[in-house]
Amino acid sequence: MIPGPFLLYLGHSDDAVGIKTSRGVAAFRPDECVGEWRHDDCPLTLGLPRMDAAQGRAAGANTLILGIANAGGKMGDALIRDALSAIATGMHVASGLHQRLRDVPEIADAARQAGVQLFDVRDPPANLPVGNGKKRAGNRLLTVGTDCSVGKMYSTLALQRTMVARGITADFRATGQTGILIAGSGVPVDAVVADFISGAIETITPARSDDGWDLIEGQGSLFHPSFAGVSTGLLHGAQPRAIVMCHDPAREHMRGLPHYAVPGIAECIAANLSVARLTSPDVQAVGIALNTVKLPEDEARRLCAQTADAHGLPCTDPYRFGADPIIDWMQTCFDTSTSPMTVSA
Amino acid sequence: MIPGPFLLYLGHSDDAVGIKTSRGVAAFRPDECVGEWRHDDCPLTLGLPRMDAAQGRAAGANTLILGIANAGGKMGDALIRDALSAIATGMHVASGLHQRLRDVPEIADAARQAGVQLFDVRDPPANLPVGNGKKRAGNRLLTVGTDCSVGKMYSTLALQRTMVARGITADFRATGQTGILIAGSGVPVDAVVADFISGAIETITPARSDDGWDLIEGQGSLFHPSFAGVSTGLLHGAQPRAIVMCHDPAREHMRGLPHYAVPGIAECIAANLSVARLTSPDVQAVGIALNTVKLPEDEARRLCAQTADAHGLPCTDPYRFGADPIIDWMQTCFDTSTSPMTVSA
Repeated sequence: MIPGPFLLYLGHSDDAVGIKTSRGVAAFRPDECVGEWRHDDCPLTLGLPRMDAAQGRAAGANTLILGIANAGGKMGDALIRDALSAIATGMHVASGLHQRLRDVPEIADAARQAGVQLFDVRDPPANLPVGNGKKRAGNRLLTVGTDCSVGKMYSTLALQRTMVARGITADFRATGQTGILIAGSGVPVDAVVADFISGAIETITPARSDDGWDLIEGQGSLFHPSFAGVSTGLLHGAQPRAIVMCHDPAREHMRGLPHYAVPGIAECIAANLSVARLTSPDVQAVGIALNTVKLPEDEARRLCAQTADAHGLPCTDPYRFGADPIIDWMQTCFDTSTSPMTVSA
Repeated sequence: MIPGPFLLYLGHSDDAVGIKTSRGVAAFRPDECVGEWRHDDCPLTLGLPRMDAAQGRAAGANTLILGIANAGGKMGDALIRDALSAIATGMHVASGLHQRLRDVPEIADAARQAGVQLFDVRDPPANLPVGNGKKRAGNRLLTVGTDCSVGKMYSTLALQRTMVARGITADFRATGQTGILIAGSGVPVDAVVADFISGAIETITPARSDDGWDLIEGQGSLFHPSFAGVSTGLLHGAQPRAIVMCHDPAREHMRGLPHYAVPGIAECIAANLSVARLTSPDVQAVGIALNTVKLPEDEARRLCAQTADAHGLPCTDPYRFGADPIIDWMQTCFDTSTSPMTVSA
């Protein structure tokens, strides 16, 4: 896989959501991150030592992770320049952008000459099948959201931590570039050819006959006009027994689209269950995950309690406060008391 | 574009739906088709003279159209052999399959040596944007369906014929390989990278300020577990004022999936309107198009009348009986009587 340790790139970004790949790697693989590379006009930080390519290399970094995302995923001139300077120090480069490193001639040439590798983690695997919708065994949970970038990956990883801590077998199934960098495998579903969206998800979550769970990272939102097709195919391919609704209470409009309002949580749960039932008729919503990073703790806890009451579902910020309320409720829903969490069928 | 006349390939196919590309080109560009190439085990015909590559070339064909589709779109050995023999006669080759002609080394080499062209009409254009969902001017109609391959393209083209015959400006917007071969342009939406589905449709149906209509060919079905993501993105990108529901009353289960039932027409209309409202809040269903090819005429007409009564919408087989009932109703819905059909806003 991608050789660590990593130098995480923030570049010129001033969009806190846009650096989510770098932030996610820092949060879930902290031991592998030597520093962050940001320019003077970048007001953001991951709390890591600030260093440029040469300093990062001197500190031991083997790979520069271009962990910034922008709609459409194009590479600008500044980013290309910085990638070239990392290559010049002998670092590999990994990217989660739509545009491939190997398709930028200067970068491809420089990497060849320097003998370093380029990792385009948004490359989908070859020979994906068309989805077949056949009922398959196993426990699967999918995180869904009112919008893009509201905490679906963080929530999924937090749910996994809590399950594993309770002795439940739980595997994280990555569907985006950050998740793939963290997990070491997965499918970048938004980069798959449209006909193969649900087939890609069926492939990474094959039937399982143990009592363990596949925890599948959701993408986009049924209510985002740019990306709802991806979310729809993900729901159908996942065949989830359970969904968790992720929401950012501070989001003022749909990401990137000031002309679109964020849907209500209840409306969004209903729409997701309706779409999911096509391939998983008994699907249940088992919890709500709020991203409360912008709220003080007491206010965040109060909002979680209010949201739980309003929707009759456990609600927590799983990354900040742990996922226990949701896992408790899942054990009530699915437990047969012969194992930590068994399929009741 | 692709040089006619065409030889249409049926190969070894025994799946009447699987040869829909060859059949569509024969139906809507009959003057350009010199014959059909089918092997002894192919029980299907388009009613054209039967000929192989050499005979087709002798009859004047300049391009072999590999107009067969199979789930996943892979090319088998027999198809590759036949493509090579067409190239050997000096014909160009056009294909609508997912797997590209140029990616099959024998075919690419042979074409280079013979000096003929390969046309992969499922190649999406480069640099598609992410959809933005911004409200744009103009009249757009999208055909949707209870399943794949129920007549959405035929219905769209039949609606166009009737509108044009009435003096209404109406442009067919192709979204699949057959439509693109017929129209000469369009985007193969099922071959687009998932993040760009709605953006691709926004691109081929830009804002228009005349009173004309964009008639957009639909794809898949919200109720098909393999392809509903494509249908969702199409609805969002199209921002349709009007949808027409297409249905094959003889379909016993979802195409390719015996374990999935075909949804009811009313349920399917409601689901499509619900998804479409995200980007087009005032969208209306304006008609139902039945594919009655398997029914005798009196039975077909009776079924159209019954379906119209049951759903309170005009119903016809637009290809067999014309689209007049639907266009009449659209003129009632949208006409301001200052032009054949004007935006009432």
